[in-house]
Amino acid sequence: MNRLYLAAVSALLATVSSLADAAAMADVLAASKPSDWRPLDPARTVYLELSSGRVIIELAPQFAPNHVANILALVHEGYFDGLAFMRSQDNYVVQWGDADGKRAIRTAKKTLPAEFARSAAGLPFTQLPDPDSYAPQVGYSDGFAVARDSANGTAWLTHCYGTVGAGRDNDADSGGGTELYVVIGHSPRHLDRNVTLVGRVVQGMELLSVLPRGTGAAGFYETAQERVPIRAMRVAADVPESERVPLEVLRTDTPTFAAVVEARRNRSEEWFKYKAGRVEVCNVPVAVRRPKS
Amino acid sequence: MNRLYLAAVSALLATVSSLADAAAMADVLAASKPSDWRPLDPARTVYLELSSGRVIIELAPQFAPNHVANILALVHEGYFDGLAFMRSQDNYVVQWGDADGKRAIRTAKKTLPAEFARSAAGLPFTQLPDPDSYAPQVGYSDGFAVARDSANGTAWLTHCYGTVGAGRDNDADSGGGTELYVVIGHSPRHLDRNVTLVGRVVQGMELLSVLPRGTGAAGFYETAQERVPIRAMRVAADVPESERVPLEVLRTDTPTFAAVVEARRNRSEEWFKYKAGRVEVCNVPVAVRRPKS
Repeated sequence: MNRLYLAAVSALLATVSSLADAAAMADVLAASKPSDWRPLDPARTVYLELSSGRVIIELAPQFAPNHVANILALVHEGYFDGLAFMRSQDNYVVQWGDADGKRAIRTAKKTLPAEFARSAAGLPFTQLPDPDSYAPQVGYSDGFAVARDSANGTAWLTHCYGTVGAGRDNDADSGGGTELYVVIGHSPRHLDRNVTLVGRVVQGMELLSVLPRGTGAAGFYETAQERVPIRAMRVAADVPESERVPLEVLRTDTPTFAAVVEARRNRSEEWFKYKAGRVEVCNVPVAVRRPKS
Repeated sequence: MNRLYLAAVSALLATVSSLADAAAMADVLAASKPSDWRPLDPARTVYLELSSGRVIIELAPQFAPNHVANILALVHEGYFDGLAFMRSQDNYVVQWGDADGKRAIRTAKKTLPAEFARSAAGLPFTQLPDPDSYAPQVGYSDGFAVARDSANGTAWLTHCYGTVGAGRDNDADSGGGTELYVVIGHSPRHLDRNVTLVGRVVQGMELLSVLPRGTGAAGFYETAQERVPIRAMRVAADVPESERVPLEVLRTDTPTFAAVVEARRNRSEEWFKYKAGRVEVCNVPVAVRRPKS
């Protein structure tokens, strides 16, 4: 028993530090106040129900109002129920939708004008002080990683791990939310401003990231049998309250979040021998938790 | 048949563009010369044999000579055979080694002085022109993504998707290669210069990235039954030639590679409505192929 325990501890120590890691950020979060958190709004939270469990997505209407409204309409009408993931490309995305092109759309729209960027005016923006490879400015807005260009006054969601986007054909206005994808690898930031991003996964990424990779071009499954079925997709507000998952998201316009960013820029844990002094926009997790009861 | 074909094509089109993507880089690679490629050196290539297939790692002795020599010694003596992956942390790393602390080391060393960075002198370096969030300069050296600091004359391997590192305890010199990890998520660049990086996966990442996530702290499996066994780990040079996988890696000091970088900085495909004009160091794939016969 003791030896097994020691072995387990030894294995835990010989890591890439994430225990210590988690601890430092956890200290900041443990000292947070209730007002540092906001509840997920059930009206813009969707549940993707898989046989492996529930994936929870927070939509971002402040960036893509029309796409988000359309996705909510698609979900309301049960468009996605019984459809499937048809694509899992390593270090890139998983994607779901109507692979056979047979599902009718009743109340929603099939396509919409692109919402690749928006005016930065009036948008909360907690800026990171560090350089970014792709954008003049990066930071956080209401829980989402975003980029901004003061030269033309625009802002946009950035492709990070867990970001949700609306697939499209060659035409910029050929998307609309009937096909959705989630980033499961290193952030493909070259897609920024080329796709309408609609939100992010706040719980359940570990269910999506392990979907068997498709062996076809671009990670498409080569047979219908390989596809991963979607039991249902539901707006949280449409689900009985007893079946919802109550979650809170850390506000990104607070001193507590600034402390999280700083804890990530300069890791204070003993394990770290070199402090980066910088952080990249996709490397600051925006914490999600069950409300304290 | 036709309808199915059309459905498949439609699904392929409604993507996040990687088909077009792949095509543009493929054009550059298709026009490459034989001299743009170098064969993998069997003496510093290791095969990690899983029940799901073979993972191929190219080691980087130019960055971590002592760790690489020690890993080769460990592999030679069969140290890893029958050990297992004991950790799979979402958006971070998978890690393997002697979870029970029972395996004897015969010829190799248990720990080694850290090799976090080296002198930049004499190191080939194809520099990227774009800003990096973490390092003064980034680029490529003999097929590996690297960072450089001219102020102190050092260079180091960067944590990208597929990078292989040597786990360690709190002491900087407590690693040595008996526990190895591979990055399976967004690049954790804050680990740069905190861990001895030893190489990268050149084939088989899709076998590692889908390992079921561990439910323990830091993604450790909570029971021995969950661990993913390693059938064997072999130096390619020790494997009969008929059982080796002949692979070539694109040279990163050639005009062809410069064209690859440019194809990634500015995507010329029709699908792209906005060209980034920049690229991040982990977003340029260093191509690997079977030799043309």
